[in-house]
Amino acid sequence: MNDANDPNAAPPAPQERLPMRNWRFDFGSYAETRHFLDRMADLSRREDYYPDVSFGKTYVNISIDAEGQAALAERNSSFTGEMEALAAADKA
Amino acid sequence: MNDANDPNAAPPAPQERLPMRNWRFDFGSYAETRHFLDRMADLSRREDYYPDVSFGKTYVNISIDAEGQAALAERNSSFTGEMEALAAADKA
Repeated sequence: MNDANDPNAAPPAPQERLPMRNWRFDFGSYAETRHFLDRMADLSRREDYYPDVSFGKTYVNISIDAEGQAALAERNSSFTGEMEALAAADKA
Repeated sequence: MNDANDPNAAPPAPQERLPMRNWRFDFGSYAETRHFLDRMADLSRREDYYPDVSFGKTYVNISIDAEGQAALAERNSSFTGEMEALAAADKA
């Protein structure tokens, strides 16, 4: 008997939905904010992934939803690590 | 008698608080979105005004709060009109 085809078998555990991940990066000037946004645009193009971004003069918020997290994980993408490194570099 | 110094004078009418103004612009591709964001960055630098911006792959939302609207009005800035023209050009 093959459990996978048994209509009475317990259903698979529901896939846990990942919570939205959010980052907030603060910068000392508009020039630093702009530089980070430009590097983020390069990263998005390279990884073909476009998170939701909101920004003002000296801050940037990035949100990655469950779907985005799953897509990045599937490709073993280093998107979030690189994003954090870029922000740290621009704040230095 | 000077009304301005009369503690019993009616208080000045409260300044009406302008509601937040929001724009949403949709684009056909990330390249168009990016082009608009770059032109918006130029406009912000030129006008020294930095609205709250949020964007994803093919959309941009711009919010200008009461304080921003007042500041732009005081300088007779054409910021919002130029922003709308830029968006229309990138959608064309």
